[in-house]
Amino acid sequence: MRYSQLFGKTKKTAPADADSPNARFLTQGGFVDRLAAGIYQYLPLGFRVLEKIKKIIQEEMNAIGGQQILMPVLNPVEIWKQTGRDETIDDVLYRTEGAGGHEFVLAPSHEEPLMVLAQQIINSYKDLPYAPYHIQLKFRNEARAKAGVLRGREFMMKDMYSYHVDDEDFQKFYEQSKVAYFNVFKRCGLEAYMIEASGGAFSDNISHEFVVKTMSGEDTMLLCEKCSFAQNLEIAEARIEAPKGADEEEKPLEKIDAVREPDIKASADLHVVPEWKVLKSVIYKVNGGLLGVCIRGDLKVDTKRLEQNLKEKIRGATAEDLKEAGLVPGFISPIGAQIPFIADHSIKYVKNFSTGANELHKDYKNANLGRDFQVKEFLHLADLPLTCPNDGGALTEERVIEVGNIFTLGTKYTEAFDVKFTDKDGKQKYPTMGCYGIGVTRLVGTVVEASHDEKGIIWPESVAPFQVHLLTLGNDDDARAQADKLYKELQTDGVEVLYDDRDESTGKKLNDADLIGIPLRVIVSKKSLEKGGVEVKARTEKESNVISVDELEKLIIKQ
Amino acid sequence: MRYSQLFGKTKKTAPADADSPNARFLTQGGFVDRLAAGIYQYLPLGFRVLEKIKKIIQEEMNAIGGQQILMPVLNPVEIWKQTGRDETIDDVLYRTEGAGGHEFVLAPSHEEPLMVLAQQIINSYKDLPYAPYHIQLKFRNEARAKAGVLRGREFMMKDMYSYHVDDEDFQKFYEQSKVAYFNVFKRCGLEAYMIEASGGAFSDNISHEFVVKTMSGEDTMLLCEKCSFAQNLEIAEARIEAPKGADEEEKPLEKIDAVREPDIKASADLHVVPEWKVLKSVIYKVNGGLLGVCIRGDLKVDTKRLEQNLKEKIRGATAEDLKEAGLVPGFISPIGAQIPFIADHSIKYVKNFSTGANELHKDYKNANLGRDFQVKEFLHLADLPLTCPNDGGALTEERVIEVGNIFTLGTKYTEAFDVKFTDKDGKQKYPTMGCYGIGVTRLVGTVVEASHDEKGIIWPESVAPFQVHLLTLGNDDDARAQADKLYKELQTDGVEVLYDDRDESTGKKLNDADLIGIPLRVIVSKKSLEKGGVEVKARTEKESNVISVDELEKLIIKQ
Repeated sequence: MRYSQLFGKTKKTAPADADSPNARFLTQGGFVDRLAAGIYQYLPLGFRVLEKIKKIIQEEMNAIGGQQILMPVLNPVEIWKQTGRDETIDDVLYRTEGAGGHEFVLAPSHEEPLMVLAQQIINSYKDLPYAPYHIQLKFRNEARAKAGVLRGREFMMKDMYSYHVDDEDFQKFYEQSKVAYFNVFKRCGLEAYMIEASGGAFSDNISHEFVVKTMSGEDTMLLCEKCSFAQNLEIAEARIEAPKGADEEEKPLEKIDAVREPDIKASADLHVVPEWKVLKSVIYKVNGGLLGVCIRGDLKVDTKRLEQNLKEKIRGATAEDLKEAGLVPGFISPIGAQIPFIADHSIKYVKNFSTGANELHKDYKNANLGRDFQVKEFLHLADLPLTCPNDGGALTEERVIEVGNIFTLGTKYTEAFDVKFTDKDGKQKYPTMGCYGIGVTRLVGTVVEASHDEKGIIWPESVAPFQVHLLTLGNDDDARAQADKLYKELQTDGVEVLYDDRDESTGKKLNDADLIGIPLRVIVSKKSLEKGGVEVKARTEKESNVISVDELEKLIIKQ
Repeated sequence: MRYSQLFGKTKKTAPADADSPNARFLTQGGFVDRLAAGIYQYLPLGFRVLEKIKKIIQEEMNAIGGQQILMPVLNPVEIWKQTGRDETIDDVLYRTEGAGGHEFVLAPSHEEPLMVLAQQIINSYKDLPYAPYHIQLKFRNEARAKAGVLRGREFMMKDMYSYHVDDEDFQKFYEQSKVAYFNVFKRCGLEAYMIEASGGAFSDNISHEFVVKTMSGEDTMLLCEKCSFAQNLEIAEARIEAPKGADEEEKPLEKIDAVREPDIKASADLHVVPEWKVLKSVIYKVNGGLLGVCIRGDLKVDTKRLEQNLKEKIRGATAEDLKEAGLVPGFISPIGAQIPFIADHSIKYVKNFSTGANELHKDYKNANLGRDFQVKEFLHLADLPLTCPNDGGALTEERVIEVGNIFTLGTKYTEAFDVKFTDKDGKQKYPTMGCYGIGVTRLVGTVVEASHDEKGIIWPESVAPFQVHLLTLGNDDDARAQADKLYKELQTDGVEVLYDDRDESTGKKLNDADLIGIPLRVIVSKKSLEKGGVEVKARTEKESNVISVDELEKLIIKQ
């Protein structure tokens, strides 16, 4: 493709409404154009990226038995009434009405029309499993569209659905789908992490999100430095292992004399319990008032985390502060205290705490959360490194973008549409289902978020709109002729080349190449020819070097 | 693909609402499923056909410089107000409203969003020409959806638009687009004809439709037996060449004595004019009443055509009929007659007719249509063969389906969106545009309409969902093992195979193969193995024959 003929040009500046790197670079580079909030047009450069991503997804879905179909945008509202989703997700539905008073939903996902097909196709255990999928536009009436192509009102998704005779078969496929998903993201040049979602370890529902680490992602996650494990902060905190014997029966609260030093060790000694069984209460001055923080006796409050969570500066309470609040140092307890308390998650998993009684030399035994005291909020406040449950690798907080998710649907939809199969035993059963989504247009934006510098996009080869960005610089006729020749040769070799043949300044052409971000830049100029060839530079590198055309062809074919 | 695992099965009977061969066979064969009137889902078989057709279109559009993009379904109503199309085609628009009161049109074509792009991209004559296109869903709020996937409410189209510096450049591209269109249809196995539309020879607007001859098309066209010329009946009729001198100035009407025999020749002799300048009036008895038919004196009324047009039986009026109506044989004229008249198109192009005056031995000179007499309707009634204006080939009436069209848009849209370019002469000008549509989902249905028999579809190889339909028949273990082996080998060779491995009756499997219509059927059975190989039959043939597996592989690779 000659750049001079390309439908779509770079822009000097980013659009004022570009609120994210993907919005900025994709628009400025001439990949997409915003028609309205959350609605983008794909120009030839953007369309090429989109098609490459689609192809990768198709290949990986087909590899695990996915069968591509195409379901319509216009869904008769009647089928949405069968699942009740016309009401439960009414707020995100676009609706329209046509001739004959027919009401339609513009599908934001496609369980309902698929079930109409399943009703006709699924009869016997012999038919199962099935994994139909499609790549189709979706519509979500988002109150606020944002972040370029990441959160749109009209966007493209791959949604796959699977039907199985039982949970075991479902589980097998669910595991295969994880592998396929990691393959998709890896092939798109992205490092993906998988997170247990909606309850994770503390729920029976199996559901996973796939996230990609980016410079300015929409969410914060804990990512393992060793493996692909990711976790929500809150779930990760709960993983701080509760000590053995912590989850015992609740015993009656008891107030006892406690002549002891005002510290945790003294309390543990007096009560003859391990330190983790002592409820530690630390008081801070926050925004003019006092705030108590409960944590297990063996742990420390990470004041930095506390400040981040509260979004306020804090300092320790002084002796005077405590006195004013009627609190006795070393004998503080949330039981009967007149100030608000919050807590670290760790205290949720310990019963029968020992704690002070807000009187000098008085303690409580068997204090229990919920029964004897409450706190306003649980946060992750312990000064402990979080580790990966798979391999013990350190978990670090990172900004991420969600790029896919996989869900257990169970028999919710097969029951709603009365889709049954006759099992081997002759009984009628509901197939169990899963669903598997990848945001296709979102992936375009995510690659940009994950791979750019201040100059522009750095496309991974697998999804780059072209492999080679060929430029002529200067007005030398010979250089121009050589470039024309090379362009034709590379095309003949089947190499995807964007050829910037414009009469523009060197600076403009080099800046555009960086902005567009094609993996290999090849310059043909009088200077490069004098040095014996063409100047090549990978978009990922700073340095260029001059090689012969023969070497270039070897280099590209090697790729 | 193993048929036993295919998401989508044949149905025993056609759906009751299948109003056309494509609706019947595509639904019964498991290619598509009707979700609502005019809204179809594409199952794996149908999706494969759709993708093959898309690929052919993409290749041909790219070959003439088309650049693929993707424009959105949701169009802000504001851009439609700029062309006024929100009102002019309001009746077919689906509309929706979203968060923030944003109103959208579900685009039935994409001139408007494209112009928003063109505003940003087109600046100089150097930028032009451009031919962006996309393949996207379209929405039309049809009062009556019909004919399966031929006329849907949600359907897929390829729409290309071109921008040019002047008419000459536009014309050049317009001619290229014709070639590309013929290529597309030919590659889809269709014989296409091109018709001058909207006025054709009698209008300055250039616009062409492409139609395909089918057994039960929606329209009737005149197709040339020698070339790809097609024509609307009405336009073709007008081509019966008006004689030289027919289009003269109108002279005053004059009533004269006319003692002559009661026939055309006598009238022509008396008035000293050629026979074509005599207005012939023939009277028929139709449905109990009389009807006059005017035609040029040198032509005859084709009574069969007249009956077809009137959808009534007719007979010639008797002397008694004429007398009762006050008409004098040989001196009949529509001027002052008390019965209704219709006419052949031929009289529209002749001035100053001679005709009777509804009195014995009285004639009119200089009778003119419109001024002196009117007729209720113009029809093609002349008993004349219609010939192709290109090569003189006979034109025959055929049922056709429209599959594409190309239009001159001029500067209508560039003016509406104020898209200008600076020309070589430094002046600001509006680019001139064309637009070029192909119904993609419609093509799927058209192939079926054009290529089927009473048993099912006969797919052309180019768009068939699979190339080979492999079947095992009977329960012979060896045959099954051989079929399994052949299936794997063919797959390894990259052959697209649908493998019917079901435990179904021979009859059911053979019927399904005919219904699905894959080009080559290959049977592996005990019988075929005994005869030394596999039984092969082309879907287009009646006879099968047994060949060795080696020969089969040669046959398929040869294909």
